[in-house]
Amino acid sequence: MDELYDIAIVGSGPAGISAAVNAKIRNKKIILFGNKELSSKLTLAPKIDNYLGYYNITGKELADKFLEHLNTMDIVISKERINNIYAMGSYFSLMVNDKEYKASTVILATGVLFGKPFKGEVELLGRGVGYCATCDAPLYKGKPVAIIGYNKEAEEEANYVSELASIVYYIPTYKGEYELRNNIEIIKDKPLEIIGDSQVQKLLLANGEIQVDGIFILRDNVAPEQLVPGLEVDENHIKVDREMKTNIEGCYAAGDVVGKPYQYMKAMGEGQVAALNAVRYLDNKAMNK
Amino acid sequence: MDELYDIAIVGSGPAGISAAVNAKIRNKKIILFGNKELSSKLTLAPKIDNYLGYYNITGKELADKFLEHLNTMDIVISKERINNIYAMGSYFSLMVNDKEYKASTVILATGVLFGKPFKGEVELLGRGVGYCATCDAPLYKGKPVAIIGYNKEAEEEANYVSELASIVYYIPTYKGEYELRNNIEIIKDKPLEIIGDSQVQKLLLANGEIQVDGIFILRDNVAPEQLVPGLEVDENHIKVDREMKTNIEGCYAAGDVVGKPYQYMKAMGEGQVAALNAVRYLDNKAMNK
Repeated sequence: MDELYDIAIVGSGPAGISAAVNAKIRNKKIILFGNKELSSKLTLAPKIDNYLGYYNITGKELADKFLEHLNTMDIVISKERINNIYAMGSYFSLMVNDKEYKASTVILATGVLFGKPFKGEVELLGRGVGYCATCDAPLYKGKPVAIIGYNKEAEEEANYVSELASIVYYIPTYKGEYELRNNIEIIKDKPLEIIGDSQVQKLLLANGEIQVDGIFILRDNVAPEQLVPGLEVDENHIKVDREMKTNIEGCYAAGDVVGKPYQYMKAMGEGQVAALNAVRYLDNKAMNK
Repeated sequence: MDELYDIAIVGSGPAGISAAVNAKIRNKKIILFGNKELSSKLTLAPKIDNYLGYYNITGKELADKFLEHLNTMDIVISKERINNIYAMGSYFSLMVNDKEYKASTVILATGVLFGKPFKGEVELLGRGVGYCATCDAPLYKGKPVAIIGYNKEAEEEANYVSELASIVYYIPTYKGEYELRNNIEIIKDKPLEIIGDSQVQKLLLANGEIQVDGIFILRDNVAPEQLVPGLEVDENHIKVDREMKTNIEGCYAAGDVVGKPYQYMKAMGEGQVAALNAVRYLDNKAMNK
């Protein structure tokens, strides 16, 4: 059988790293998915006064302290991007495109979702709509593709896709200089709806529409109910109880993704509670075997 | 009229000081009741690994960082001991014997209250005596440990410790079925005194004694509704919702007093949430005047 992790943690912001540290202290086999700068929201904070022990610190400085803490404990951050998480009964299957990770429990610490899904997005997910352009680009060889980019990282993916697709339309939701290849067509318009029956056919914009076979939506975050089918949410936040349990057994959530206030300490406390309850869940399961 | 504080915070452990810092940042007039060492549980912790940003720090060192933080923000700790808190409708009356303090809101962060300590317990706290077996278990790897358990939850902690300790003696103060691992020795006897010079050496029982390096005393908590008449509690913990609101309007609670896990980050996150919701409550009240 494939390697089975005790706890898979998705997200490397304050909630995710707090969960990782606590789970590791309790001798659990963990895998932490995130990015090497932990959280852009954290690293971009100009000044933090309410992180006890560090008065008047910048987000970057605090993130460096956290990274040092993780390094000392040999906690590494996997940079792979999880597209989907499926509850398989006795374990969770975490998909990075075709690659599968298995874990007995999951802690979701993916941060706040920026915006609602587009109309048609959920319905056509996996049937032309995707969240990882570099992963699925080969499917669109010689075909027209639209990319809705929410940040500069999306430009790299657009450039890659343009090597394969017949044409790439890039619809940025942010302002600035775009570092895109010449063969990419930039459309400064507002995406409204994704249209198609069994497969994506076109993208409706505020001032027009484009015929495409594939649409990649490269948000900072994926909506949690898209990430984990069957997950109960309440106005864009994952529903949890005071033990940070979601409606899916063995699945916990912590941090901004479960609700306001969006604060570091609150997120870290929740990450800790999620981890310790996941540990208890695992231990109880082991006892009853 | 007497001075009216916006927020009175009772308790200077992690939850209380986090509440104070956040309330002060939001320009509220606060008063913080506690003691100058913040929390004896904190300052006596031999080693803390899960406070992000400070790996492998002693409780005393961490408490000093916190005190520095409070000093920088001009937050002072009143050493007076609150005997009772009464909800008077438009304000709270906090009594220090005959002296009264008034506050529009209250945050209870009193920690877990213990019964009468065993002889030797206070003297050897942090030097072999502890209150959180799962926290400090790694210190007793390969060593003999006694656990005085006051309820079934203590059994989980005993099971965890038994993975690391050379032997675990479990002394239950209650009757019933014990769900303990086979390698745990149950002793049905009455603990009398903890003996040791600079470190725990043995536990004296009514009918014998056991040589141990560590003793965990896992007591029930004393109900805090004596402090605040009318306060709703649930098995010795104050009942709160996810906003840290109690059943009394304007009264919030955070930290160990609202439930497990008894952990710093969890307590601080809750203190923050309590403070920010108290601030919101005050602001709404001011708006509707």
